[in-house]
Amino acid sequence: MDIMNIFSGIQEQVPDEILETILKTDKFKIERIISYGHATAEGEWYDQDKNEWVLVLKGNAGLLFEGGETVIMKTGDYVNIPAHRKHRVEWTDPEEETIWLAVHY
Amino acid sequence: MDIMNIFSGIQEQVPDEILETILKTDKFKIERIISYGHATAEGEWYDQDKNEWVLVLKGNAGLLFEGGETVIMKTGDYVNIPAHRKHRVEWTDPEEETIWLAVHY
Repeated sequence: MDIMNIFSGIQEQVPDEILETILKTDKFKIERIISYGHATAEGEWYDQDKNEWVLVLKGNAGLLFEGGETVIMKTGDYVNIPAHRKHRVEWTDPEEETIWLAVHY
Repeated sequence: MDIMNIFSGIQEQVPDEILETILKTDKFKIERIISYGHATAEGEWYDQDKNEWVLVLKGNAGLLFEGGETVIMKTGDYVNIPAHRKHRVEWTDPEEETIWLAVHY
């Protein structure tokens, strides 16, 4: 069996956010996302066609939802974001990488 | 938005393995499993109708696959187990809880 580690293979420099597909079927996709101080571009919102269940495996981040709700996510926190629920990443930890596990479905 | 933490709400005593559904659709199910020194019963094998992608969020475990392959899984390790690939949990850490995130699909 092929064993991988979700915390491995991360470059020291993360100039851009890194999105990697871990598992993909026609029903859903599991993705690893690595942020390092990244945020959604000024004035931009995610408006996704799919639901997204997302878990912070390491690090910290602040999410903003349309309407003004802000949530702070730390290691172990997860949230289920319905499709078309507009949101943005306001900030991620500038001192260490933030590793997300996202299930798009 | 409803934020939960995958490391929270774990009792100090885990006499039996705990399986909790985190998210369920008609296509897949995300489950949290908490083991504490548990193993699959002597002589028993998992022979599942669904594929299982499983990630160790915390702890350590040993899996045995039919045919004799043994894999040791530590924090962050993940494996994709095809349906009907017979396997058993030989052991989990006796000193701390092992927390698994399993996606059944």
